Amino acid sequence: MLYPTDDGARYELTSPTAMPKAGGFLWNRRMMIQVTCRGYATAQFMQPEPAKYSYAPNLEAKTFMQPEQAYYAHHPGRFFYVKDEETGEVFSAPYEPVRAGVDRFAFSAGRSDLRWTVEKLGIRVELTLGLPVEDVAELWTLKVSNLSGRPRRLSVYPYFTIGYMSWMNQSGEYRPDLGGIVASCVTPYQKLQDYFKNRLFKDKTYFLCENAPDAWEANQLAFEGEGGLHAPAGLEGERLAGGDARYETPVAAVQYRLALDADGSSQQRFLFGPAYDDAEIAAMRARYLSAEGFERAARDYDAYIAKGSGCVRIETPDKELDNFVNNWLARQVYYHGDVNRLSTDPQTRNYLQDNMGMAFVKPEVARAAFLHALSQQEASGAMPDGILLFEGAELKYINQIPHTDHCVWLPVCLLAYLDETADYAVLDEPVKGHDGAVKSAFERISMAMDWLLHKRDHRGLSYIEQGDWCDPMNMVGYKGRGVSGWLTVAAAYALNIWADICAQRGATTLTEHFRAGAAHMNASANTHLWDGAWFARGITDDDVKFGVAADSEGRIYLNPQSWAILSGAASEEQRKLMLAQVDTQLDTPYGVQMFAPPYSKMREDVGRVTQKHPGSAENGAVYNHASVFYIYSLYTVGETERAFDALRKMIPGPDLEDYLQRGQMPVYIPNYYRGAYKEYPRTAGRSSQLFNTGTISWVYRCVIEGLCGLKGDAKGLGIAPQLPRAWPGMKITRQFRGATFQVEVTRGAVDKVQVRCDGVELPQARIENIEAGRSYSVQVTVP
Amino acid sequence: MLYPTDDGARYELTSPTAMPKAGGFLWNRRMMIQVTCRGYATAQFMQPEPAKYSYAPNLEAKTFMQPEQAYYAHHPGRFFYVKDEETGEVFSAPYEPVRAGVDRFAFSAGRSDLRWTVEKLGIRVELTLGLPVEDVAELWTLKVSNLSGRPRRLSVYPYFTIGYMSWMNQSGEYRPDLGGIVASCVTPYQKLQDYFKNRLFKDKTYFLCENAPDAWEANQLAFEGEGGLHAPAGLEGERLAGGDARYETPVAAVQYRLALDADGSSQQRFLFGPAYDDAEIAAMRARYLSAEGFERAARDYDAYIAKGSGCVRIETPDKELDNFVNNWLARQVYYHGDVNRLSTDPQTRNYLQDNMGMAFVKPEVARAAFLHALSQQEASGAMPDGILLFEGAELKYINQIPHTDHCVWLPVCLLAYLDETADYAVLDEPVKGHDGAVKSAFERISMAMDWLLHKRDHRGLSYIEQGDWCDPMNMVGYKGRGVSGWLTVAAAYALNIWADICAQRGATTLTEHFRAGAAHMNASANTHLWDGAWFARGITDDDVKFGVAADSEGRIYLNPQSWAILSGAASEEQRKLMLAQVDTQLDTPYGVQMFAPPYSKMREDVGRVTQKHPGSAENGAVYNHASVFYIYSLYTVGETERAFDALRKMIPGPDLEDYLQRGQMPVYIPNYYRGAYKEYPRTAGRSSQLFNTGTISWVYRCVIEGLCGLKGDAKGLGIAPQLPRAWPGMKITRQFRGATFQVEVTRGAVDKVQVRCDGVELPQARIENIEAGRSYSVQVTVP
Repeated sequence: MLYPTDDGARYELTSPTAMPKAGGFLWNRRMMIQVTCRGYATAQFMQPEPAKYSYAPNLEAKTFMQPEQAYYAHHPGRFFYVKDEETGEVFSAPYEPVRAGVDRFAFSAGRSDLRWTVEKLGIRVELTLGLPVEDVAELWTLKVSNLSGRPRRLSVYPYFTIGYMSWMNQSGEYRPDLGGIVASCVTPYQKLQDYFKNRLFKDKTYFLCENAPDAWEANQLAFEGEGGLHAPAGLEGERLAGGDARYETPVAAVQYRLALDADGSSQQRFLFGPAYDDAEIAAMRARYLSAEGFERAARDYDAYIAKGSGCVRIETPDKELDNFVNNWLARQVYYHGDVNRLSTDPQTRNYLQDNMGMAFVKPEVARAAFLHALSQQEASGAMPDGILLFEGAELKYINQIPHTDHCVWLPVCLLAYLDETADYAVLDEPVKGHDGAVKSAFERISMAMDWLLHKRDHRGLSYIEQGDWCDPMNMVGYKGRGVSGWLTVAAAYALNIWADICAQRGATTLTEHFRAGAAHMNASANTHLWDGAWFARGITDDDVKFGVAADSEGRIYLNPQSWAILSGAASEEQRKLMLAQVDTQLDTPYGVQMFAPPYSKMREDVGRVTQKHPGSAENGAVYNHASVFYIYSLYTVGETERAFDALRKMIPGPDLEDYLQRGQMPVYIPNYYRGAYKEYPRTAGRSSQLFNTGTISWVYRCVIEGLCGLKGDAKGLGIAPQLPRAWPGMKITRQFRGATFQVEVTRGAVDKVQVRCDGVELPQARIENIEAGRSYSVQVTVP
Repeated sequence: MLYPTDDGARYELTSPTAMPKAGGFLWNRRMMIQVTCRGYATAQFMQPEPAKYSYAPNLEAKTFMQPEQAYYAHHPGRFFYVKDEETGEVFSAPYEPVRAGVDRFAFSAGRSDLRWTVEKLGIRVELTLGLPVEDVAELWTLKVSNLSGRPRRLSVYPYFTIGYMSWMNQSGEYRPDLGGIVASCVTPYQKLQDYFKNRLFKDKTYFLCENAPDAWEANQLAFEGEGGLHAPAGLEGERLAGGDARYETPVAAVQYRLALDADGSSQQRFLFGPAYDDAEIAAMRARYLSAEGFERAARDYDAYIAKGSGCVRIETPDKELDNFVNNWLARQVYYHGDVNRLSTDPQTRNYLQDNMGMAFVKPEVARAAFLHALSQQEASGAMPDGILLFEGAELKYINQIPHTDHCVWLPVCLLAYLDETADYAVLDEPVKGHDGAVKSAFERISMAMDWLLHKRDHRGLSYIEQGDWCDPMNMVGYKGRGVSGWLTVAAAYALNIWADICAQRGATTLTEHFRAGAAHMNASANTHLWDGAWFARGITDDDVKFGVAADSEGRIYLNPQSWAILSGAASEEQRKLMLAQVDTQLDTPYGVQMFAPPYSKMREDVGRVTQKHPGSAENGAVYNHASVFYIYSLYTVGETERAFDALRKMIPGPDLEDYLQRGQMPVYIPNYYRGAYKEYPRTAGRSSQLFNTGTISWVYRCVIEGLCGLKGDAKGLGIAPQLPRAWPGMKITRQFRGATFQVEVTRGAVDKVQVRCDGVELPQARIENIEAGRSYSVQVTVP
């Protein structure tokens, strides 16, 4: 039902009903679109804040992207009705809204396009969606072929949702001069100053046809009539009625009346998107709406995507893993890093981690981003809750809530960049703050580390205020006293990393200062938070320790354990105890839960996490961003099997049908799989269907540095593959500092990793003096 | 297709397709619900801000009620599927979602309930919706009767939308202990302080069944399956599957398996609404969910509605007019005044006008409201943009935009109260402002009048700032220089009224002061705004006069003309010129447009009015609130025919079918009918379907004081009916100061109005020394 193509570069789904929400996503520098296999679409573009051109049937709240999005009949989508003019029979491609049942169905998700093939009534409908690189537009190709062996008369009706645009000046009509339907509105506003903000908004939605249609309808209700979307009255007549929308919900529906020979076919191209005015619509038409325009756009887009193909390819006994790593993982990293999730104010921790991923894809982008983030540091050393990417951007949603963890991510993420590039010069870059003060990046990160040391209570534990990385835990410390167990060890980890970097620069005093700080925090964690077999999650304002054995809900949290491993707070003995508890209490067939048991009701001293549904989002979910740190920490201590087991559960497959049932095409890792495995087994494992997640760059890092064991450092490339027990070997192609490493890993009778490079046995499992442009052939033998 | 019952107290619609949006509305002290004839519903309740318990399928924006609401398949609604268990045939009552076509259909809108009768497949379904007076709950009765003359096996499935409640802790399940489906969520929030605001929210939605159903489904998607709402897969099996919703969209669907004798029937009661917790749900069940509970609630609700039956009944040659005035007009006035449109911060002008209406329905409520409004006056004398009704309420939406007209409405509205009650003592009531200063109501209104005098430019014209009563005109004066022609004459009118009241108190100096102010404003209007045949609408910041003959759009505005008549700015000669222009340029078959021609595009010096769609809302609509002032002004100068013509177009009928086609049951006056009659004839005349409108209290005043001519004053009741030419007479029953006046108006050979009271001819057309409790029989002869 779900198949990869031979090279894993596409995934094909052959049933529209197996998992209705499964789909794919495309993006470019200005927009993104997520489309389900059945034709529902969620698209947004930046002007500069996220905006829509295909709307819900009502005035939707502006909010962050909702997980596990609910679809419904009038959800925005792109559909193609087909009517047999002889029998009156109707179906629709891809599948909605008619849901007629089809003879053949294939939804195919590629890296740079989405395609469908649908057959019914002896007719084949082929659809392709592509995007340009810089403009906001959907490029649709429709091909209708006659498979029936006899001449056919058909009507084909592309039907694209425009929806309820606004209570201000909404309208729609067919424009012969522009060659399509154009709907207009004014983005709703009430405050005068918003008029000036909004006046250049692209408030028009166009649906342009390469060839003039035979009929059209621009009025949603007129199109549907009493039939409803599954059987629109508009299709009953010989021609669509040619109506307009005047402060009525507009729609883009057109009709082509086709007479196909026995083996005939017909192809049409359409352009769908937003524009400021008629001139822009005409320009978009001229630029794209032709065979040549579509081909050029597809070539340019392929080239754009190819720039994000990353630095590693693998060949292992696990083909689905290979497919995902080689075709999709870097793509998702690239999406995050290249367009910053199409946000104007990414959360600081997300921005830093997304750009950590870019260190493996486009390091120059990561470099600029780290410096840009530092330019928004506060004079206290604190990092703001979000990084503003544009003049005029504002902190929104969760970025208005004070969190105390942002500084942690500076050294943690920068380290990956330094390891990958050895570009230590970045530390000496001058960075001008918003107060005008110019300090080097090194000085700024040192300030951030001091801020972490400062923001602690008398016990040496880190204040949580209204949240740390786990943002819904808003009530632990809002009175100013509560502390975070995770943040304490996370800060210790960050300080240790930074101390290492200070040491590398020969900054001895600072090295000792930060190393001592880390040690003190680790000691404080052990004194106050070790609960016998794991570390507590924190201590509330009212001095209640939580995430401890005495709790019946939220008893054990994953993050404090993972980061205690990273920070060194956990001894080997403690680690064994912790891992056993993680196995018992948190591990599930779908990955490792963030905590367990999930909260079933509000706990007023912990906060909003308890108001998420058990198993969803952060309330006991397999929250991949947390899980991946567990995996990362396991790789750092050589817990190879546990690490791979958790990683394998996170990455699509090996059982694609099961993965599909959980709501997902294997083209990205979602931000969570539902948890609450014991409490709600029916829904456990479901995908959030959100591709925005800090998880992804850490998965890439885990694959590169952990599984493949090909991690850079100041002088070269270390080699320490961590093959799961069941594998006899693997092959890796690694791009690193301009060179290419063809690595073949096999098992052998060795007691530690042995490496031959270009036929020469190396004294240590590392390669130094790397020459850019060279290709290295590396044989690795592992025990 | 649309019929009144004999007494006009109900309207029945016999086609579900003639006008899909037609419907009725009910409200109580805590909630309101608007239901279409086909079963879509929009309900909200106060906690204290408006909230929902039956949601859209996505996260809707919180905004004001949208006009001409767009319905779509998954719009919230209340539906009852019926399946013939022998044939598998399915239909749904009232009509959605199956739209199966029915053998008989009747939607019946009453003052205190809504009812449906639907027949199909030999089955009759009768539905009744009622409300309690104080609680938030819908009381539904379902009766299924067998008309087929043979035993039948049926399944009946009430299906009530719960919808997408929240991204926080959404769930739903059947609760045998409570006897129904209960869905839960947490109202979405991100800021900590909102948790404390929201923690007592009624975040549960219950659907309770008097008798336990045979099966149920609480999961929307599971209910629909691949069938969709028009043919839910859930109905295919013998029983609904009994599913739950766990962070999935919940639904309330239950199944009764009925075996009906040849003439058998079955009745069920249901309760639908929001609750805080299980205990509240159980209490609601105990209070209402029984034959006796429903009967008691219906009695109480009838009694509640009866308290708002107003002070006038008429019997004229125009039965639809009688029906509307006698059954519906006061009800709509009462709705506005008793629950303040279910807002927590009504716009000041609305609050004052709504309570002006209450002067005719419940004068004690009006009195308290005037004093409450004055308690929020600013020290400058200005009135705020909205009146906060609850501790913790905030100014929202348009109330955050500074408007300059609010003071005008104080004397204008208070006059109606004084005329109706002669309660001049209200003027001496001490009113404590928010600055703690205590001043009498009289002093406060005098301050407000001085503020109006003060807020003028060097020409004596009133500044408009970001808007006056016509709120979308936000760019005329935002730079601080633009002036409003309407406001200038409106202020003059207010000042004249206030001067009269001062005179009545013997406050000579103040009388002269305000009278001179009014005169000066009228003179300024004449000097600067008279445009040859009408008054201009204003002058922009950049000194551009608009609403003048030279404008190709927005050439003539209605309000400046109406209020120039009221203020005395217009001489009789001017009035003739103006009225001729109104006839030519603004009058349409659907009423008098607010201005013409509508703006087709943005005019940056006028503002947002130009961003409404031409004909909709304020852009050239028949904006009834403006139209009614025209009517009122016409009655004050004896323009009887013109006044009645415009009034008659506003009031439902005489052609009910036409009115229905325009989208409306004749049970309320909407805030606008679409205008742009010349530009967009297809949509002209359409109802906004919004029953919140300051129009309604003025219509009541026009009927009482104008058409009936039974206006009070300090000493008694004036009698000056203004019968339209075609009428031979009319009968009126008027409640006034505790007495009842049975008035019969006939035409006769008289040259002015002659009155006999209880058989005695009066020297003047007025009755004084009115005795409460008495009934007066009054014969009026008019020329």
